[in-house]
This record gives sequence, C-alpha cells and structure tokens, in this order.
Amino acid sequence: MTECTGRADAMKVERDLHMSPGDGESSYATNSRLQEKSILKTRPVLHKAVAAAHASLSPAAGTMVVADLGCSSGPNTLLVVSEVLGAIADQREDELQGGQRPPVHVQFFLNDLPGNDFNLVFQSLEMFKKLAAKEKGAALPPYYVAGLPGSFYTRLFPDRGVHLFHSSYGLMWRSKVLEELSTGIALNEGNIYIWEATTPSVVKLYRKQFQEDFSLFLRLRHSELVSGGQMVLTFLGRKNKDMLRGEVSYMWGQLAQALQSLVEQGRVEKEKLDSFNLPFYAPSVDEVKEVIKKSDLFDINHVELFESNWDPHDDLDGDLVHDSAQSGDNVAKCIRAVVEPLIMHHFGEHILDDVFEMFAQNVAKHLQKVKTKYPVIVLSLKARYAPKYPTGDSYYSVFAQNQLM
Amino acid sequence: MTECTGRADAMKVERDLHMSPGDGESSYATNSRLQEKSILKTRPVLHKAVAAAHASLSPAAGTMVVADLGCSSGPNTLLVVSEVLGAIADQREDELQGGQRPPVHVQFFLNDLPGNDFNLVFQSLEMFKKLAAKEKGAALPPYYVAGLPGSFYTRLFPDRGVHLFHSSYGLMWRSKVLEELSTGIALNEGNIYIWEATTPSVVKLYRKQFQEDFSLFLRLRHSELVSGGQMVLTFLGRKNKDMLRGEVSYMWGQLAQALQSLVEQGRVEKEKLDSFNLPFYAPSVDEVKEVIKKSDLFDINHVELFESNWDPHDDLDGDLVHDSAQSGDNVAKCIRAVVEPLIMHHFGEHILDDVFEMFAQNVAKHLQKVKTKYPVIVLSLKARYAPKYPTGDSYYSVFAQNQLM
Repeated sequence: MTECTGRADAMKVERDLHMSPGDGESSYATNSRLQEKSILKTRPVLHKAVAAAHASLSPAAGTMVVADLGCSSGPNTLLVVSEVLGAIADQREDELQGGQRPPVHVQFFLNDLPGNDFNLVFQSLEMFKKLAAKEKGAALPPYYVAGLPGSFYTRLFPDRGVHLFHSSYGLMWRSKVLEELSTGIALNEGNIYIWEATTPSVVKLYRKQFQEDFSLFLRLRHSELVSGGQMVLTFLGRKNKDMLRGEVSYMWGQLAQALQSLVEQGRVEKEKLDSFNLPFYAPSVDEVKEVIKKSDLFDINHVELFESNWDPHDDLDGDLVHDSAQSGDNVAKCIRAVVEPLIMHHFGEHILDDVFEMFAQNVAKHLQKVKTKYPVIVLSLKARYAPKYPTGDSYYSVFAQNQLM
Repeated sequence: MTECTGRADAMKVERDLHMSPGDGESSYATNSRLQEKSILKTRPVLHKAVAAAHASLSPAAGTMVVADLGCSSGPNTLLVVSEVLGAIADQREDELQGGQRPPVHVQFFLNDLPGNDFNLVFQSLEMFKKLAAKEKGAALPPYYVAGLPGSFYTRLFPDRGVHLFHSSYGLMWRSKVLEELSTGIALNEGNIYIWEATTPSVVKLYRKQFQEDFSLFLRLRHSELVSGGQMVLTFLGRKNKDMLRGEVSYMWGQLAQALQSLVEQGRVEKEKLDSFNLPFYAPSVDEVKEVIKKSDLFDINHVELFESNWDPHDDLDGDLVHDSAQSGDNVAKCIRAVVEPLIMHHFGEHILDDVFEMFAQNVAKHLQKVKTKYPVIVLSLKARYAPKYPTGDSYYSVFAQNQLM
C-alpha cells in the first residue's frame, strides 16, 4: 500500500488499521457485538449467495473456495465460517434425500491486514471444529481454514478460483489516508472525517478516494472470482442526502470534539489534530450503485440499507435511549476497539483513556437529544461472465499495479 | 489430534509442540540456523521438484499450489517461499526466451500447528515482498501467501489441489505422545527418548508410532496432491544400525541427564521424568523406504542422508570441535528454541534455565570426546496416478477419520 509521504509519523493503513488485538476488556474480540448483529441480520442474503455459489459448481469441481475479507479476530471471525457451513449443510441435507453425491470440500480464507491477530483466530479453531461437528453432524462438509494477510485493495488470489467473497464492516475503510490531507495541501480543520465545517473540496477528495478504492476492489475481486461467483458485502453507509450531516459523521464528530478539548487543554497540538483524517468513507446507496454500474463487472442480486443502533447492546427499535450514559460507554468501547491503534499511533498512547472517556460523554449527550443509528448497506453481487484467458493484458495489469503498492 | 488420556497435565502435541514464539534471544526465529543450513543444502533437490511440478501443470492451469508443512516462524519460513519463487523465476526466464505465455500464479500455504507464531510471519511478509520484487524483477511470478494452522497428520487440503509439498525438520515429530508411556503402562525409566537403557518393547512402541504416522502422512498427502505432484521432505534420521545408539539419541540423552540431575537434587519428581517422553522418532533410511514401499502411493525420485554438525554455527567438516563450551551453548540454544514449550508445560517454567545450562555442559563434555553429527534424510517423492473419483470411499474416509481427532 502506498506510504504517506512527507511526514515521518504519517499514518499507514496496512500497519495501523487493525482491530485491538487479544481478548482483553478493550480488545475487538470482546467488543464486536455491532458486527455480530450485522452478520445475523444479513444471514438470509448470505445463505442465498452460498446456495448460488454451491449450485454453480460443476459436478466435477470438488472444492468450493470462500473468502472473508476483513475477517478481524474475535467471535465473528468464525461466525461467518459457521454460517457458510450451515448453509451448505442445509443444502446437502436436501441433496442427500435425492441421492448420493460426494460432499463438496470447502476451503476458507480468512483475510485481514497483517496487523490482525491471526494467532487468536487460529487458536480458537480447534474448539470451533469440535462444536461444528457436534452441531451439524454428518451434513457438515469437509472444510479447511487458512489465514490470508494482506489488503483487499491488492490482489489476494490467483485468477478465477474463488466462488464466494464475504466482507462485513470492511469496505468503509479506505486503502490509504488522503495524501492531500495528511501532507497539508488541503485542510480539514479540527475534524477527523467529513463534518459540518468540512469544505466542499475536502468532501470531494474523500468521495473520489472511495470511488477509486471501490472500483479497484470490484476489478480485483472480479479477476479472482469464477464466472457467476458471488459476493456479499456489508458496510457502513449514509442515509442523509446532506453529505455534511451523514449519520456516521455525527459519531466521528463526537470523537473530533474530544480531541479538540485536548487541543484546548494544550495536551495535543492543533496541527496534530488538523493532520489526522480517518481513512474512511460512508457512501450512500446511490454512490455505491454508480460505481458498480460503471465497473460493468457485476450484477446486483440484492441491495438494501438497514439501520443499527449506535449502542451495540441496545436492541430496541424506536427513538428512545433509556440510559444515555451507559450507551455512551458502550459506543466508546466499541469504537475504541476499532480505532485505538490508529489514534495511538498518531497521538500517542497517553491520551487514549481521556479521549475515549470524553468521547463517551459526548456520545451520551448526543444520544439524549436524538437516538442516531448507523445506516448499514448490504450488497449481494454476482460476477458477470469473463473469458478465462483475456486477449489483452488488462487482468494481469490490475494485479501488477497493486502487487507492489 | 488424540488427547493423551489419564493425566490432567499430559502433554498435548497440538498445544505444546511449537517453536518458541516471538523474535527474542531464546526464540526459534533467532535460533534456527540448523534448519537454514538444511534448506540451503537441499536446494538442488527442491529446485528439481519445483521444475517438475511446474512442468506438470497443464497449459490451462494458471495456478501452482505449494505448501510448506511445519513452516515454523522465523527467517526460514519465508526462505522456502523465496527458494520456490527463485526456481520458478529461473524456469520462467528460460521460457520467456522461447515465447510469451502468461505467468503461472503461485499460491503458498504455510502450515504449522495452531500454537505457531503466525503473526510474526505475516508481519514480515511486506518487507519480504519488497525484497523479492527487487531481487527477481520481472521474472517473479505473481504469488500469494496464506497461513494454514493444523497438524500435518490430519487433512489440510481438499482433494487433488496441491502441486508441491515441502517439509523441513517436521517429520521426526510424532502425531502424539505414546499413550502407553504417558499413562505408565510401559516405562522408559529416566529417559525422554530411546537411549541405551531403553527396553526393546519401548523401542517397538516408538517405531510403530513412526510407521503409523508416516504411513498416514503419505496417504493424506497423496489425496491432496495432483497426479504427479511432488514432495520434498527433510527430517532427522539415524545412521547407526544400533537403535539404542542413534546419533540424535545421544543428544536427547544429554537432556535426559540434565533432568536426572534435577531429580537427584529433589527438584523434579522421578515419576515426572519417567512419564515424559518426546513425541519424536529419527528413523533410518531403510525404515523410511519400507513405509513408502508399503504405501504404494509414491515413487522415490531421490533419497539421501547428509550430516550436519550438532552445533549449528560450526560449519567445519572433520571430527574436531574447536570450542566445545561454545558449541555446547549453541546446541542448547538451538534445542531450547525447539522444545522449550514441551518441557515447560510438563516440568514447569522454574526449571528451564537450569536444565538448559546443565544440558549445555553435558553437550560440551560429549563433544570433547566425539564430534557427533545429526543425520538428515532428504527425500523427494512423486505422487503416483490416482483416479480423480475413487470408486470406494477410501480417500474420504482418511479425511473423516482424522478431521475430528
């Protein structure tokens, strides 16, 4: 991935963007309920995609390859494996009533950036396998689980070998920090993402980076998928038409305010805050559709937007927050598990506790006024047919471009 | 893997057999020169196998799958990847002179037990990729590196997808501790491996476990290899015809003596030592050939036995040890990096420093008398043709048997 230039301590997505490791109190493993809820919510879409991928296997093909991009390390990592195995087991039970056919073998690849705690995932595999065998019995297909480090904005697989991609809460992250912002060519003063005072030119930079990243992602995955291969993608989006008042903007806005307080207290330099911008973008459904249409590589099976409460432990519908202080704490824990390494690398470890305490208070105040929700986009795509051996070198060139980033 | 029964603190190979993690002074990463030397020594055999695997790819097959079994975590882990890429790059340069053909993509799987420090390997990948690109330039094929946790005595891959297996310093390890020994049905008093006083019945148990494990290994890998697939295996063996005086037996004997000293000092219970046996066996070339012949699944391309000094930093031929105290230290460091987790789990952390200090002294004394060398067996095998869809369920049953161990 391209390094940010011009600053010795510049953020580097491949190094700094990873969930908090281990399984302690502030780890991602302990604070990933939001992501868990989303996986369960998108279950029907995922099961349909698994069935389509499974059905598209030729009778001679004995192996189905499934990759989870941005798998992280925690209970959700293997939840995806479990869901896919469950879907195949269901289908297999139907088949078994029809007649004997050797079971398809499933090869899973769990992908995340190299900083992800893969050891934790691997060490929980043995227990997972025992439970899966107990739960699913004879219908459980033979399966294998590998870890695959690397950015999903580079090539991860050989040509045309993957049947199903899944990615949950990954694609709102950008491939890199906007260079113009980190080097000071453009300025997003006092903010860490698009917010009320962000200038139109900065908004444009963020949006352009999303379009480039998502378009690259589609090209890369299309090269790696078999014809008719499936892709289920879930990520944070934007519902509000006003770009400056997106629902996730409010959340990052509370974190920016906490950092601003530290600037006022003289504990963080103003330039330090001004040069920090999250490699993040929450697009609208229309923006997403536009990139897919332009790419000309995928058909949309399904697209929807659902809403998920900021507080991952608040399962209630409606517009009332019962205990805003508690909810503020819950949101802060959840967000800290996601961005702690990024914040720590840029601002130093010493501010972490204070910044997230203030963030919790800011969120609590905000939720007292209005119960805000994350808009979550769910996309199910099908790869269009592509010739196995393209006449030009367009497929390979995508690889070559990105391999050495 | 089957758990040892009958003892709460019994050794468990999948949990306890892994190289010392991290990259500190006593880590495997810092103490793996022995293994490095062996990889360089077997280079010509590996390069031939890579060429054979590469040549056997049909023009339609765009991907070559290579797996390193027991990859560990250290500089050697990626050295294997580098060697294979180098061999393919060489061949590609020859091809390029003949005419254009799209480059084969190489998919690597680095396998080891789940306790291996995969994070360390993954974090060094980025630097490795940069260096490889610089060194090999345009001849470097596109490649991908995944980590695959699990015992190589279970199925690791779907049917018939792998072109080349490599394993260095892995196959002398057994799949489990001999049950009869850990539960006290048979006794190998005061020893931790076969040594001078070991009874014939205990020798037989060790040997039987090797035969079962190696035969299982061949069946599993054969199911996973394409027809004509290649396998290069390097592991510690025995040159001495006398089973009780194998060259590696002497080395473990020095460690057993160190433990015996602690028993005499009352710091370790005698029963604790008697119930500890290494899940290890160094076979003779004839024993290895016999299992391969019986399996009826592989042709032997090449087999040899070379010798490697106990002291990994002693590169001199001949029978003279120049500084036996230094060599004793070097051997102790090397062996500690390999068996520390096993020893620690059985005897406790508090004895580690003392036991390896005494071990170093014992080795020094031994080397003063005679410069002993490890016999290392190098095997290159080719998978015989097997029908893609076996009529019986013999292939699948191997999987089913082992998946849930």
